[in-house]
Amino acid sequence: MPDYKAPLDDMKFVLFDVLEANRLADIPGYEDASEDIMRAILDEAAKLNESVLAPINASGDTEGCSYDPQTHAVKTPEGFKEAYQQFSQGGWTGLTADPEYGGQGLPHLLKLCLNEMVCSANFSIGMYPGLSHGAIDAVTQHANDELKQQYLPNLVSGQWSGTMCLTEPQCGTDLGLITTRANPNADGSYALTGTKIWITGGEQDLTENIIHLVLAKLPDAPDSTRGISLFLVPKILDDGSRNPVFCGGLEHKMGINGSSTCVMNFEGAKGWLVGEENKGLKCMFTMMNAARIMVGIQGLGAAEAAYQISLDFCRERLQSRSVSGPQNPNGKADPIIVHPDVRRMLAQQKAFIEGARAMAYWTGYQLDLSHKHPDPEERQRADDLVQIMTPLVKAHLTDEGYLSIDQALQSMGGSGFTKDWGVEQLQRDSRISRIYEGTNGIQALDLVGRKLLIRDGRLPGAFITAMRELLTTATNTSYIGQADRCLSAVEEALGWIGENAFTDPEQGAAAATPLLKLFSVTAMSVFWAVLDAKAAEGLAGNGSYSKTFYSGKQKAAAHFYRITMPLVSGYLEDIRAGKDTLMAFTDNEF
Amino acid sequence: MPDYKAPLDDMKFVLFDVLEANRLADIPGYEDASEDIMRAILDEAAKLNESVLAPINASGDTEGCSYDPQTHAVKTPEGFKEAYQQFSQGGWTGLTADPEYGGQGLPHLLKLCLNEMVCSANFSIGMYPGLSHGAIDAVTQHANDELKQQYLPNLVSGQWSGTMCLTEPQCGTDLGLITTRANPNADGSYALTGTKIWITGGEQDLTENIIHLVLAKLPDAPDSTRGISLFLVPKILDDGSRNPVFCGGLEHKMGINGSSTCVMNFEGAKGWLVGEENKGLKCMFTMMNAARIMVGIQGLGAAEAAYQISLDFCRERLQSRSVSGPQNPNGKADPIIVHPDVRRMLAQQKAFIEGARAMAYWTGYQLDLSHKHPDPEERQRADDLVQIMTPLVKAHLTDEGYLSIDQALQSMGGSGFTKDWGVEQLQRDSRISRIYEGTNGIQALDLVGRKLLIRDGRLPGAFITAMRELLTTATNTSYIGQADRCLSAVEEALGWIGENAFTDPEQGAAAATPLLKLFSVTAMSVFWAVLDAKAAEGLAGNGSYSKTFYSGKQKAAAHFYRITMPLVSGYLEDIRAGKDTLMAFTDNEF
Repeated sequence: MPDYKAPLDDMKFVLFDVLEANRLADIPGYEDASEDIMRAILDEAAKLNESVLAPINASGDTEGCSYDPQTHAVKTPEGFKEAYQQFSQGGWTGLTADPEYGGQGLPHLLKLCLNEMVCSANFSIGMYPGLSHGAIDAVTQHANDELKQQYLPNLVSGQWSGTMCLTEPQCGTDLGLITTRANPNADGSYALTGTKIWITGGEQDLTENIIHLVLAKLPDAPDSTRGISLFLVPKILDDGSRNPVFCGGLEHKMGINGSSTCVMNFEGAKGWLVGEENKGLKCMFTMMNAARIMVGIQGLGAAEAAYQISLDFCRERLQSRSVSGPQNPNGKADPIIVHPDVRRMLAQQKAFIEGARAMAYWTGYQLDLSHKHPDPEERQRADDLVQIMTPLVKAHLTDEGYLSIDQALQSMGGSGFTKDWGVEQLQRDSRISRIYEGTNGIQALDLVGRKLLIRDGRLPGAFITAMRELLTTATNTSYIGQADRCLSAVEEALGWIGENAFTDPEQGAAAATPLLKLFSVTAMSVFWAVLDAKAAEGLAGNGSYSKTFYSGKQKAAAHFYRITMPLVSGYLEDIRAGKDTLMAFTDNEF
Repeated sequence: MPDYKAPLDDMKFVLFDVLEANRLADIPGYEDASEDIMRAILDEAAKLNESVLAPINASGDTEGCSYDPQTHAVKTPEGFKEAYQQFSQGGWTGLTADPEYGGQGLPHLLKLCLNEMVCSANFSIGMYPGLSHGAIDAVTQHANDELKQQYLPNLVSGQWSGTMCLTEPQCGTDLGLITTRANPNADGSYALTGTKIWITGGEQDLTENIIHLVLAKLPDAPDSTRGISLFLVPKILDDGSRNPVFCGGLEHKMGINGSSTCVMNFEGAKGWLVGEENKGLKCMFTMMNAARIMVGIQGLGAAEAAYQISLDFCRERLQSRSVSGPQNPNGKADPIIVHPDVRRMLAQQKAFIEGARAMAYWTGYQLDLSHKHPDPEERQRADDLVQIMTPLVKAHLTDEGYLSIDQALQSMGGSGFTKDWGVEQLQRDSRISRIYEGTNGIQALDLVGRKLLIRDGRLPGAFITAMRELLTTATNTSYIGQADRCLSAVEEALGWIGENAFTDPEQGAAAATPLLKLFSVTAMSVFWAVLDAKAAEGLAGNGSYSKTFYSGKQKAAAHFYRITMPLVSGYLEDIRAGKDTLMAFTDNEF
């Protein structure tokens, strides 16, 4: 298996040539994020991922996590504890956290880059700090000062980890069905009782304490999503005693075997309210965009790693001759990269990965602007874009990232199917990213049922305006027409939705998935026009990367439009086909 | 996990209502294959698969095969030996084999049905008799009488098993690179020396002997695919002594963990020539169509099993309310089958599976006609169709079958990702079917580079003629126009290929994959028109199945065309885009 190398050139190209993310340092609160600092951080992140996390990825998959029913303890794979310590001691757990609690306060954009690398190098180990990050956000945004002072410093330093306890056996998507109860104690705390499932890092041996963020219902709570509150429940209490929250077992999964996925039993465990009573879901929603964008990045990171492996394989593997005559006459056969059909699998990967990176990082950049830009109008504009881009980044990058890995595996033939090369693990590990943090079908419903409607329905217009503005910066490309056609298709689709879905919500729900795909490939088509233009500029003389870097980018752009444009009319046709063929079935006709 | 139930109604509908396979009994050699007998055999096959093979599928995956380096022995999972014995003692290993050697001489079509069930119930265990079947075919067709008498009876009865030893570390697709040598012994046998990899059932504990069919080179053989010969190499020799062919280890794979995938070391092992010297690849080719169709069936069988599980899950799982109001007002939530986006995932599976079943069984029927029809012209006509349908069945059913399972998994959310439900195993197990017996890219090259050209180029015309003839039987359907549009697109694509690919083979190779997809969905579009018409006839009063069976079929037909027609123009556009965006890359621009 070839070693993972972080794609630093492409990351820096997107950050500094495409997004001009050096501008972040002009924003109060991000003064430290100078271009030099960001470049240095990326280089350090690459070293950590390449030399510490990647080497224990395959062994972590083989060994998996194990559970001791006597002690309720969970053992993570060999080497995970040491690697986690290097990760936390390097300050990576607190990269974007509030400096008041020991964080570095750097832009989220940098964290996206870090997480892309982590998901390439070792998807499973990345889950532990990933969930801590969610807990840090929840506490920072919603807890009172006492809880913040008490829990944030150790969460930020990584000495403790965090979890998000939402799902129960009878409810995943529909959190209104939660039955975990929180009964008030005399001292202002609560006693939590219930069972949570699929809790990432619910138990592990990496940290001395685990801080659970738990959705539960107060005794008098309404029986709906408006009756859910958020609680902080530490594994170890202040006085060093064990809080009665125990792991009841581990899930056995298709992938991410190095990540412990726990059944958690709360047996009257002591917790404290975070945020207001019955407003727990709202607290979750404020973190949701960042979390979902991060899941999209998982799809990208896994795809990047698979691409590297398959590209290396296709350059090295000698098999058959080119149909146009020997290309490697001194060898017994040609490298399989000469074959058009193999190139099809490589070009598809490259066209996805590099476009997706631009799309995701741009969204991360908007996330940072939405948090800290001094101008409230700019913050609002950026937040509008984050709102509508979030389901696209989450679903498109994980769906297409999975297909990209599938192409990597296929290009390698039987080798791809064996554990020796690591691509099959990337496929298994990344499968979950299409499901958690809201399945990709839920993302599509979020787009059509929520994001098109909120804020007086201005988000789709904000999307189209932003995309057209981006296109005006792409002066050295011949693909403006293609991107325009995509944008027009989005407008046509929105017209159909406007005419049909508001009177019949099933029409919107039926159109949701193709609509999300149409929005996503449209965004990709805009970013590819921008990338193509920047590559032309780089080739024209000012670029800091190699000529093949730029010319490869241009060729990937050409292939992107070749494979994408036929999809656009197909999605539009599917949207217009409406709900009929779906709803016509009675349940027993399936 | 719901229990697998063989889809007997749909199988019988395709066999007897659509294909009118009762006509097989009119063909000399198939007199025993009366409709009653075939129905009874299907019922028995269902019982065996449901009650013997399916229950040890998940445990076989978890346990896998194990290897003892001291003895070179391989242990298959618990229960496999007993299940294999029931399988062979039931006569299933010899279902289609020559009665002269103890077989039942029944049509291959029945074997397709059996194998679909096996791949639904327990993909891994099916690999062992599957490879024996290949060995039986090779020996039956190419070995001399002495070898046949000596080896066939025990292979047919299943007392012994067979393997196909082709791949070596340096060659998979390109068998010209084989280095295993066969040196003549004084007694007319040969001594084989070399290493073969990825040998299914190369070693196991199910049978007392293993008969390896091995490709190797004679000392004076030309250094190309024209210098390969086929040999029969038993594990245990006639006199009971151990032939020096040893398993050197097992592959660790993404799936089919219950199937042993062996490195086989031939250390001067004694073997006998099968067929003529240097004609080994030709011997392989005569078995290839049947083997590839069988692999296509694997994609279908795995998809059927996943569909059953996901459908059951979506009917039972209560989560959220229908967007058009509660459908299950007495429950806390509605079953998720009410949601349009969930129905999209179910309808896509049904539209694939039922169309694919008709397409594959029809091809199997042609295979039987090509073998035994008394009229040589009919045999030739049927064989032309088998030739061109084989790459379609192999590649389309495995590619789309995999996507179908992917939809099943996705519809189940987090449950799909856990091992509890079995869908993730079906996804992992079936992944190999897109790779072995020639990767699906190789199937596409077989179509464009071979099947369009052989026999004076008459095969594509034979395909179109047969499809149009099938359409004339579909009088009760409104989808003739759609199928016609697909057929016209195939003709346009063939025109483009004719103009471009013969002068520039890279153009053909670049078009191969979309061309195969276009042929495949076209065949599916014809079969769906036929299925829809037969369903209308059934509803009109003469049918032996339930009304929901027929009306469900009609609704699946409608959904099939909804999702398929947009693809057709996309494939055509992709073909016409030619090789440029693929070949433009220099190797280091990827």
